[in-house]
Amino acid sequence: MEDSINSRYSVESNGDIIRPRRFTNLPSACNVQESDDIESIVTEVRSNENITLLQSVRRRVEVSKEKVHVGSLNVLSAKYESLDYDTCENYLLLEEERKNGFKFLIRKNIARWFVFLLIGMLTALVACIIDISIEELSTVKYAKLSSFVDKYVIEGSLYIPYFLWVVFNVIPVLIGSVLVAYVEPIAAGSGIPQVKCYLNGINIPRVARIKTLFVKSIGVICSVVGGLAGGKEGPMIHSGSVIAAGISQGKSTTFNKDFGIFKYFREDHEKRDFVSGGAAAGVAAAFGAPVGGVLFSLEEGTSFWNQSLTWKTFFASIISTFTLNVVLSAYYGAPGDFSYPGLFNLGKFQTFTYRLYEIPIFIIMGAVGGLLGALWNHVNYKITVFRMRYIRQKWLKVMEACTVAAVTATVGFLMMFSINDCRPRGQDPTKYPTQLYCTDGQYNVLASIWFQTPEASVRSLFHDPPNTHNPGSLAAFVIVYFFLASWTFGLASSNGLFIPTLLTGAAWGRMVSIVLFYIFPDATIVHPGKYALIGAAAQLGGVVRMTISLTVILMECTGNITFALPLIITVIAAKWTGDFFNEGIYDTLIQLAGIPLLPWEPPPVVNNIYASEVMSHPVVTLKCVENVGHIVELLKLTTYNGFPVVDPPLSDQNEITTYGRIRGLILRSQLIVLLQHKLFIECHEDWDDISASLFRDQYPRYPAIEQISIEEYEKPYSIDLRPFMNPSPYTVLHSTSLQRMFRLFRGLGLRHLAIVNDTNEVIGMVTRKDLARYRMWKHQGQMGVEELLISKDM
Amino acid sequence: MEDSINSRYSVESNGDIIRPRRFTNLPSACNVQESDDIESIVTEVRSNENITLLQSVRRRVEVSKEKVHVGSLNVLSAKYESLDYDTCENYLLLEEERKNGFKFLIRKNIARWFVFLLIGMLTALVACIIDISIEELSTVKYAKLSSFVDKYVIEGSLYIPYFLWVVFNVIPVLIGSVLVAYVEPIAAGSGIPQVKCYLNGINIPRVARIKTLFVKSIGVICSVVGGLAGGKEGPMIHSGSVIAAGISQGKSTTFNKDFGIFKYFREDHEKRDFVSGGAAAGVAAAFGAPVGGVLFSLEEGTSFWNQSLTWKTFFASIISTFTLNVVLSAYYGAPGDFSYPGLFNLGKFQTFTYRLYEIPIFIIMGAVGGLLGALWNHVNYKITVFRMRYIRQKWLKVMEACTVAAVTATVGFLMMFSINDCRPRGQDPTKYPTQLYCTDGQYNVLASIWFQTPEASVRSLFHDPPNTHNPGSLAAFVIVYFFLASWTFGLASSNGLFIPTLLTGAAWGRMVSIVLFYIFPDATIVHPGKYALIGAAAQLGGVVRMTISLTVILMECTGNITFALPLIITVIAAKWTGDFFNEGIYDTLIQLAGIPLLPWEPPPVVNNIYASEVMSHPVVTLKCVENVGHIVELLKLTTYNGFPVVDPPLSDQNEITTYGRIRGLILRSQLIVLLQHKLFIECHEDWDDISASLFRDQYPRYPAIEQISIEEYEKPYSIDLRPFMNPSPYTVLHSTSLQRMFRLFRGLGLRHLAIVNDTNEVIGMVTRKDLARYRMWKHQGQMGVEELLISKDM
Repeated sequence: MEDSINSRYSVESNGDIIRPRRFTNLPSACNVQESDDIESIVTEVRSNENITLLQSVRRRVEVSKEKVHVGSLNVLSAKYESLDYDTCENYLLLEEERKNGFKFLIRKNIARWFVFLLIGMLTALVACIIDISIEELSTVKYAKLSSFVDKYVIEGSLYIPYFLWVVFNVIPVLIGSVLVAYVEPIAAGSGIPQVKCYLNGINIPRVARIKTLFVKSIGVICSVVGGLAGGKEGPMIHSGSVIAAGISQGKSTTFNKDFGIFKYFREDHEKRDFVSGGAAAGVAAAFGAPVGGVLFSLEEGTSFWNQSLTWKTFFASIISTFTLNVVLSAYYGAPGDFSYPGLFNLGKFQTFTYRLYEIPIFIIMGAVGGLLGALWNHVNYKITVFRMRYIRQKWLKVMEACTVAAVTATVGFLMMFSINDCRPRGQDPTKYPTQLYCTDGQYNVLASIWFQTPEASVRSLFHDPPNTHNPGSLAAFVIVYFFLASWTFGLASSNGLFIPTLLTGAAWGRMVSIVLFYIFPDATIVHPGKYALIGAAAQLGGVVRMTISLTVILMECTGNITFALPLIITVIAAKWTGDFFNEGIYDTLIQLAGIPLLPWEPPPVVNNIYASEVMSHPVVTLKCVENVGHIVELLKLTTYNGFPVVDPPLSDQNEITTYGRIRGLILRSQLIVLLQHKLFIECHEDWDDISASLFRDQYPRYPAIEQISIEEYEKPYSIDLRPFMNPSPYTVLHSTSLQRMFRLFRGLGLRHLAIVNDTNEVIGMVTRKDLARYRMWKHQGQMGVEELLISKDM
Repeated sequence: MEDSINSRYSVESNGDIIRPRRFTNLPSACNVQESDDIESIVTEVRSNENITLLQSVRRRVEVSKEKVHVGSLNVLSAKYESLDYDTCENYLLLEEERKNGFKFLIRKNIARWFVFLLIGMLTALVACIIDISIEELSTVKYAKLSSFVDKYVIEGSLYIPYFLWVVFNVIPVLIGSVLVAYVEPIAAGSGIPQVKCYLNGINIPRVARIKTLFVKSIGVICSVVGGLAGGKEGPMIHSGSVIAAGISQGKSTTFNKDFGIFKYFREDHEKRDFVSGGAAAGVAAAFGAPVGGVLFSLEEGTSFWNQSLTWKTFFASIISTFTLNVVLSAYYGAPGDFSYPGLFNLGKFQTFTYRLYEIPIFIIMGAVGGLLGALWNHVNYKITVFRMRYIRQKWLKVMEACTVAAVTATVGFLMMFSINDCRPRGQDPTKYPTQLYCTDGQYNVLASIWFQTPEASVRSLFHDPPNTHNPGSLAAFVIVYFFLASWTFGLASSNGLFIPTLLTGAAWGRMVSIVLFYIFPDATIVHPGKYALIGAAAQLGGVVRMTISLTVILMECTGNITFALPLIITVIAAKWTGDFFNEGIYDTLIQLAGIPLLPWEPPPVVNNIYASEVMSHPVVTLKCVENVGHIVELLKLTTYNGFPVVDPPLSDQNEITTYGRIRGLILRSQLIVLLQHKLFIECHEDWDDISASLFRDQYPRYPAIEQISIEEYEKPYSIDLRPFMNPSPYTVLHSTSLQRMFRLFRGLGLRHLAIVNDTNEVIGMVTRKDLARYRMWKHQGQMGVEELLISKDM
């Protein structure tokens, strides 16, 4: 390159074309005829001017070794694998499709509808069992407690009902937490983060097993009956997902039983579709919100809007809420009445009206909800980190759950004992009016809040007539319940946060209405139920940060569409305020676990990060016809799950890792099955028996390579990978930007993306973790892109 | 290849590897080191065994030349181009991003929210103007008509009000149809098919211009006031889309005015996002259905579910329905009452209940709706084909519209004249009770249906007390209106089919309730309004075949969530029944126009159709640094819109079309801009001035190559395409199946897909039309994949 008189131009090294200096820093792709070396490409790109200039807004997360393990939001765990939503269109599948023809497609589609029907019905039935169990057990518990309080308050020996309450709380919680801690830890919490990750394409181990469903169902009953500040709604979503995954596969690993049906659904992407239907059916059953359910599974999970899937999801949701309605209506003695569309029944709201001048109030309440939600999330985050660091033994987890149960009873008892909030009976439809220190004909309001399930309390706050509550006791209740709920969520017990959050919000919402009523005594529009609803929406929006689905769920819950605008305004205000401080609770938990969730959009301004920088290399490849011993060695030595199949250049046939023209992609699981069935060219006899179903039999759990016995004499044999591999995997050039790869990955649900050079030789592989590693950071007005660490220790 | 003793095995030509015979028919990709010739690859794939076997279910559409032009559902038009939703991440964009940094992203995002706010508000305001105009004009018209009828019926000279009615109908329709036929033909009809195509990624000329909006708005007012069997709801969706496209671009081609704002939104994918928001806002304004609006734009349009976009869309919808509510409430004299969420106001339904045994009735009604809908579609299809063949002149179109207007008046007059259906006054809240031949104190029911807007008639049918209508007059009305509506839709006038379809359905639904009431006189559950609603849903579902959004829209319209299950069951039954016979009306119209709409899923069993078969080739390529004269020649000779930029092999630098390693992709529009600004290496001076905004200034309408003047002396100059081209376009191998290409195209919204051979040389290009050409056919139990023709004559 020589500087000419006009410094704007430079003469290119390879010829006579003059081009402006400004463009000489472009990757000079046009000159490279063959890539000599990957390192050189990487270096070339790295040394690029653009990168250097942008370095200012990029940072690598540097964490000291000790801090990596727990409580960091900036580390990805290496242990989570992706699901594979891209169909492997190999020769076998082609042949299967050809043989089966169109009629089979129709049969399969009918089977699919049938499975969605079953998902809806079974999810609703499980929901009914949980609901009825909780209802029956709670009735016994609270009726007994209420009568005991009123009996022993006269005798002055209130320690007896207190002791009883503690026992009534601790015993169910003990059962539930022992199950969760010792039998199936994944059943803890609401399960929503896990379902979200699954739908995003991450294989969370054991999340969709029947054992998980059992532990979850019993755990929910135990924790709600045990009086924990948790609800049964979140777990219903997880339960629906497990049911969907179970039914659609026609087999159970837990029971080691294969019914031999629905074999054609044994693929990651089919299973995901059913799981998203199950999650929607779960929401529908929990809240009586079929549309909300569909939107939930879209908002939280799916990336590709598939019309026919959405329709089936909607069908499952409708069936679910309908079944639940039929069963619960019959149970509550009004068969055919259809007034129980969901577990969480807010009751019929009378038609609220609102005025234009109330909208600023709603916005402010939304902002307050966002603030409180962010605080709640922060408290819960700190508690979770503490738990991850110090409460690691199973017995400690059980102890903690029991302690929370006992503390809940204690706090409740102290509140109703110390705050003497009495109201005349008959006005409030409370189930067990407890007199306590009130005069005859009156009852203690706080006792009536505590002596019922949280769902019933939310209902009371929405529907109780004005003047039922005094602001002091509400304030005390809000503070206590806020922290109790934050402590409870994440315990080794199955419970969700929807109801306690709604309860907290409804309580302070009602307080707002009382305050407004003090200021404007003539405002007939200030209905406490309306403000309780807005407060509940604000609080929940601030904690979970869902917007569309949450609004629709609340709309459907209340059966009131006219209230859509105030709700959405509140929820948006809550989300914006909350997002200013931290992430939604589910995202925080997912980050804490180091799960490589792919967000909706690639991080901004990453056009200058190229595939060559992101990819892992050197890459381990296989030849089209590969030696058995070599394959076994490879599988033992590496942990990769996908191997590009290449034509090696003729020169270096004997190298272990060779670059070569890409011919296809084969998965570890496929190789395992090939080895297991000894499909070696030299010895296998009956090739006609081989069909695509071979790979479905063991789905989704394939043996490890160590479990496959390959005799020494078999090692020189070879396998022809061509009929089994995916013959046209998606590939991109090494100069592709992170954004483009991200969109490809997210839009098509990929697991592996092969990176090729100019001559189509594979030079690297990109997986989910490589992309999830790049994230936007914001801190004190500064923004940039950060690279997370990937740790094997998490 | 030699047959050995064991006939199962064969020795491969290239070596010592023995593999089963069964696999020898695989494309022997592993042996091909360099592609010699494209033709040979194509032939190789075509001659493949798989294809031959599947030939039985594949067919090419063979249509004789004369039939190609009009009325064929099996021909694609060559004239529709795709939009480009894939960002061109060239050097300029990179530099822009780097310069602007993150702060700019935030500003842009705020601007985006603001635009969505404006879209919501303006859509609602346009809706209000249309609604109020129609209301005012209709009031005058029908009040006058009603009083004239009652005045002249005594005198026995009924021809005077009849004549007046015809005049009142024809004059507005004349104005509307002249506007549509002469000023802007794209404004005809509802515009929903056009919006659907736009969101799918097809550039429908002039669909989003302000002129279209004007014609559409005035046209809707005219056709509704003119008494045509059409509604104003469908056009609202189109209006919302135009408003969105207009505002977001900050300029108007119609007025030739560039406000210089929102320049950064001048890209296809940004504009599409706004248009989907506009469509949703339109639905929200039309039906008061914000959630339905979001679902509509998802169901009909988008492929990639983008959370933040959906959220903004929801925001626009909510703002739209809210603004409309405020304005209309004020207009109708109840400001702050918020009881007018949408144009189409069904009024408050009392809470219906339904029993389990009614569900089969709903299913049957759904099936009937599906049948009637399919018939309606067929009739409309035949009429449309007739129109395409014979009513081609503008004046004929105007004549036809006027005829329909006159016929409508005539039919209405004959009905109220001949069917003497009298009811006592006061019971029915009809606005202009016309006595006609009834005794004093009574009014003619049919006159009250005809002497109001169709919306008001639907409301009457939903809310009139039982026994308002007699089944005979309803049956007559159904038959007449069914055919009138079918004739009306597709006229050269702006009107939608929602309302007339709902009206037909509501009328026969009410008939069903009367019949049921005859059979079970004691069934208190048989509420005529409920059955009218089910009938309306069935009919509309049978015609448009939307499922989720339609259900939600109706739910939101009626303000009644408890009725979700009956509605969805009805709509699903209608869709399934209708789909058995033909496609939804919108899809039929789109097919008639030959628009290459990409469906949700690739056609099934097309794994054996490969890129090499689908692609267009030979491909025209450009070199990285290309000669100006050559570019001009190419642009003049071809109609391609995207050109791969390649490194040609050193041997044949001088060929016009060369295969070479792919380096990037450049669009025709970019080349035009480069030529226009004379960005030649040899003569351009100020390279620092060039930024990505250069290409945005003229978006979306670039001059044709003929309008660019290139002097003869400039032709030897050259352009360096590298800073401008997309340096990493998506490419796939020639052996990729149709399904995989389809998913890539649909998931990422591509316009061009380069097909490369094993060594990354471009051998072909695939565009939307190449993929849309393959479609599934069903006929008399047979199914298969057909290839459509692409015709330049359509």
